[in-house]
Amino acid sequence: MPDGSYVLRPIGVVESPLVDRETAPKQGDEGAPDAWVRFDAAVLGALRDLRPDTDVILLTWLHEARRDVLAVHPRDDRTRPETGVFSTRSADRPNPIGLHRVTIVAIDGVRVLVRHLEAVDGTPVLDVKPVLGPASDR
Amino acid sequence: MPDGSYVLRPIGVVESPLVDRETAPKQGDEGAPDAWVRFDAAVLGALRDLRPDTDVILLTWLHEARRDVLAVHPRDDRTRPETGVFSTRSADRPNPIGLHRVTIVAIDGVRVLVRHLEAVDGTPVLDVKPVLGPASDR
Repeated sequence: MPDGSYVLRPIGVVESPLVDRETAPKQGDEGAPDAWVRFDAAVLGALRDLRPDTDVILLTWLHEARRDVLAVHPRDDRTRPETGVFSTRSADRPNPIGLHRVTIVAIDGVRVLVRHLEAVDGTPVLDVKPVLGPASDR
Repeated sequence: MPDGSYVLRPIGVVESPLVDRETAPKQGDEGAPDAWVRFDAAVLGALRDLRPDTDVILLTWLHEARRDVLAVHPRDDRTRPETGVFSTRSADRPNPIGLHRVTIVAIDGVRVLVRHLEAVDGTPVLDVKPVLGPASDR
């Protein structure tokens, strides 16, 4: 096992009308609102080629999650059998990294508006990646 | 901006014939070999519902990456214009988290064999997530 640990440095933060994890949609396509991502000015050079009307993958740190949970009832439905968290999208997991495919709606300097994000207000942002198309287009 | 930082604790490690980042394929579907992921026994409860012949998303920590790089020539091709790393899949980026969609081939206790993984031997593993199907199937 690799020894030691690695330190994440947030490069932005979610600004959203969602404030309560318990009532937030579980996935972006389940009624989540649009939200702004405000980036640290230090990473402006990394986001300079983002464009509206494109899909990206946003990685966040689900800072309210529990890291000692290894199994959950999917979707908090206690009639469903307990399932190992690596087979669920539970926020509670050893490294609570959120993975969100979102569409960029608008860009205003270091602020980027994205469609349908289920992360709550104040969620730290870790990374943005392009969605990969076919190998021939890379 | 969220103050402070967050600590990742690797939950597994990649065991692969790939040892050199410079010569490794850039994406899994570009000729990457199969590789074992060896998990920490402490997370056995989290992986107990993984199954062969399913696709999962593997998150890794690209431990050899540079974190001070904000723009790159895509695919190390210097004829292509320098591009902000949030619009590329460069390993060099502020938080070098690797995102890999892989098919599980076999499971042997805490070891999971996956198809076509471009991460090099010794890469720390952070998380495993299911690929999301349509909302009606969740």
